[in-house]
Amino acid sequence: MAIVTLTTDFGLSDHYVGVVKGVILGIAPAARIVDLSHQVSAYEIGEAAFLIAQAYPYFPKKTVHVIVVDPGVGTARRPILAEAAGQYFVAPDNGVLGMIYAAGKHKVRVIENDRYFRKPVSQTFHGRDIFAPVAAHLAKGIAPATMGKVIQDYLRPAGGVPERTGKHVWTGVVVKIDHFGNVVTNFRLSELFGAAFELVLGPHVVQKIASNYAEYSLGELFMIEGSSGYLEISTGQGSAAKILGCAAGAPVELRVY
Amino acid sequence: MAIVTLTTDFGLSDHYVGVVKGVILGIAPAARIVDLSHQVSAYEIGEAAFLIAQAYPYFPKKTVHVIVVDPGVGTARRPILAEAAGQYFVAPDNGVLGMIYAAGKHKVRVIENDRYFRKPVSQTFHGRDIFAPVAAHLAKGIAPATMGKVIQDYLRPAGGVPERTGKHVWTGVVVKIDHFGNVVTNFRLSELFGAAFELVLGPHVVQKIASNYAEYSLGELFMIEGSSGYLEISTGQGSAAKILGCAAGAPVELRVY
Amino acid sequence: MAIVTLTTDFGLSDHYVGVVKGVILGIAPAARIVDLSHQVSAYEIGEAAFLIAQAYPYFPKKTVHVIVVDPGVGTARRPILAEAAGQYFVAPDNGVLGMIYAAGKHKVRVIENDRYFRKPVSQTFHGRDIFAPVAAHLAKGIAPATMGKVIQDYLRPAGGVPERTGKHVWTGVVVKIDHFGNVVTNFRLSELFGAAFELVLGPHVVQKIASNYAEYSLGELFMIEGSSGYLEISTGQGSAAKILGCAAGAPVELRVY
Repeated sequence: MAIVTLTTDFGLSDHYVGVVKGVILGIAPAARIVDLSHQVSAYEIGEAAFLIAQAYPYFPKKTVHVIVVDPGVGTARRPILAEAAGQYFVAPDNGVLGMIYAAGKHKVRVIENDRYFRKPVSQTFHGRDIFAPVAAHLAKGIAPATMGKVIQDYLRPAGGVPERTGKHVWTGVVVKIDHFGNVVTNFRLSELFGAAFELVLGPHVVQKIASNYAEYSLGELFMIEGSSGYLEISTGQGSAAKILGCAAGAPVELRVY
Repeated sequence: MAIVTLTTDFGLSDHYVGVVKGVILGIAPAARIVDLSHQVSAYEIGEAAFLIAQAYPYFPKKTVHVIVVDPGVGTARRPILAEAAGQYFVAPDNGVLGMIYAAGKHKVRVIENDRYFRKPVSQTFHGRDIFAPVAAHLAKGIAPATMGKVIQDYLRPAGGVPERTGKHVWTGVVVKIDHFGNVVTNFRLSELFGAAFELVLGPHVVQKIASNYAEYSLGELFMIEGSSGYLEISTGQGSAAKILGCAAGAPVELRVY
Repeated sequence: MAIVTLTTDFGLSDHYVGVVKGVILGIAPAARIVDLSHQVSAYEIGEAAFLIAQAYPYFPKKTVHVIVVDPGVGTARRPILAEAAGQYFVAPDNGVLGMIYAAGKHKVRVIENDRYFRKPVSQTFHGRDIFAPVAAHLAKGIAPATMGKVIQDYLRPAGGVPERTGKHVWTGVVVKIDHFGNVVTNFRLSELFGAAFELVLGPHVVQKIASNYAEYSLGELFMIEGSSGYLEISTGQGSAAKILGCAAGAPVELRVY
C-alpha cells in the first residue's frame, strides 16, 4: 500500500498523466497514486522545487515522490533517487530537489540500473520510461541501493535565501504567487526574532501584519505568516499580486526599523 | 476503506491539496481520497454549497466529505461536523452546508476536541490542521460524538428558493454556469405541476423545452431539466451563458401562462 | 481491485466528476478510480479518441475505461462496451473509440441490459446513469456478455491516416496541440523508412529533426518523434503552436526529397 505522489508540468488535458499512472499500476497494482499537482508551469523547475518541498513533510515514511519537470529530458542530465526524511524522491538531476537538500540530511543516488526501466527508453518521455517504473519498483519494496550508487556531484541550486544588502535591509524574492493571489516571499517570520519591519515591493511599502486573512478590510495589503512559515503579502478575499502587479521572481526588500 | 472526499477552492497549482492528502493518509492510511473539485472559485461559499449538495447523494453511507472554502479561517467562525443521510460533512460554519441542511434531517456538532487536531493549529490553514485530521479520524472509525457537542445555532443561509413576485410570476436566480455554459436556475421542474411557462433573463425569453441537449439547432436557446432536477437554459453544443451574457447570481423570472 | 479510468469533457469545477465517482464506488467499493483527463474540450470526440488511444496501452488487462464525451446524450446513439487488448471500454457509440478499433482486434457490444443502469435513466447524464454503473459492474467481475450482444454496425470514423496528394507529397493533419505547445501530426516516423523529408505547415517549412527537446536553440522549430510515435513540430522550452499559429485540424504536408 505504498504511496506514490506525482508532481509534474504535464497539465491535465493530455494523455501524459494517464500514461504515467498506467505504468505505475501495471508494475505495482497496490500502489496508491496521489496527485500533488500537474499544473506546475511548463519547464519551471523552481516552482516544482517549492511545491514538493512544502508538501512532502506531511506524507508518511516510505512515500515515493515522483517529480517530473524535465526540460533536459533526453540530454546528459541524470535521473536521480534522493532519500530524505525516510521518504524517496525520483526526479531528474536538474535542481528540482534543491529545497529538500537544503532542509536537512539526505542521500542522492544516480539511477543507472536499467533493469527497472521501461524499454525502449525514449528520448522524450522519461516520466513514462524511467521515473514511473523506478518509483513503482520502490513502492513494491525494491531497495534504493539497487537503483544505483550514491553520488555527491548532484545539482544544488544556489540562492533561495535572502541576502543582506544594507545596514537594515535584506533583499529576498517572490517565491510564488499562489492560487489566491497571495505573494509568497522567501523571508521566514521565525528568523526575524521579533524585530519591527516592513516589506517593500517596487513602490509599495507594506507595514501592517495580520494573524489571519480576514483581519483587514478588503483591498488593504498586509503581511502574514503563511502556512509554510514564509512571509506573504496578502489582501482580504482578493489578489495581492494583482494590486502589487508582481510575479514570481520579483525582488522584495525587508527593512528593519 | 472509508471514503474521504475533498471539495475546496485551493486550485490545482499549489501544494495545498497535496498537504491535505498527506495529512489524511498519515492518519488513515487505508482511506480512499476522492477529489470532488478544487476549482471552486476562491471564497465562493455558495458555489461549494451547490457542488457538495449535488454530489453527496451518490456516495455510500459513512463517506466523510471535507469542504474547505473558508474565507474566515482564523477568525471566530467555528469548525463543524454535520451528519446527514448517514454521511459526514466536515467544514467551517459559514453556510457552505446550507443546501444539505435544507435537503432533510441532519445533526450538527461543533468540532472542539483538539485531541484530533494537528498542532500547532495555524491561523491560516485549518484545512491542514483541523478539517483533514478530523476527517481522517472519522474515516478510521472515531465516533462523531467524540469531536464535540451538538449545536443548534449553526449558520443557515437564507434564500435559495424562488419567490412569487407577481400573479403569474416567480423570481429565481442563476445558481451557476456549468463547464458547458449551461445556465442552471433554482427552479425545479418537478414543482411546476405540468403548467406551461417561460423563463425570462434580461431581454431574453426562452419558451422551448427540450428533453435532451441535441434536440434543437445549434445557437437556439431552450429550457431543459438538468441532471440535478433544476431547470437549465442551454443551447446545442455551445454556451447558453455566452449567448445570454449572464453570470451566477443573475435574476431569472419564470412566467406561467 | 479492478482499475476504472475516467476520460471526460466534464471539466473540474462542477459536481459531474464527483457524481460519477460516487456512483462507481457505491457499486464497486474496491474499484480504483484513475482520472485520465476531465479537460477534453467540450464535445470534442476526436480529442478524447486520441487521448484514450494513447493512454490505454499502458494499463493492465481487465482495466475498465469510461469515456464520456457525449454530445448526443439522450438521442438514439447507443451506449457500447468494446473489448480490446484484454481491456474494457465503456462509451457512447459516437466514434470516440475509433483509434482503438484501428489499433487491432476488438469486439463491440451494445449495452442494453438495463438491470445494470441507475434508475430512472435521465436524458442528460448517461455518465451517471449508464456508463458509470456498467463500468462498476464490470470492475466487480460481471461478464461483458451480460451487458448486451455483439454488434458490427458501430460507428467507425473515417480518416486519421495521411493521404498521398502528390508524387512526393503526403497530406496529414495536426491531431492536437499538447500542453507544451508541441504540434502533434498523424505522420509516424516508423513509416518513413529512413527517407529524407520536411514538414510544411502554411508558410513554414521545417527540416531539422531532433532526438530530444533540448537539441536546438530556443525559438528554433524542429521535428521530433514524440513519445506516442507521431511526428511533432516542437521548439525548445516554448510553444511551437504559437510560432506556427496553428490549431488541431490544420493540414500538414510531408514532402520527401
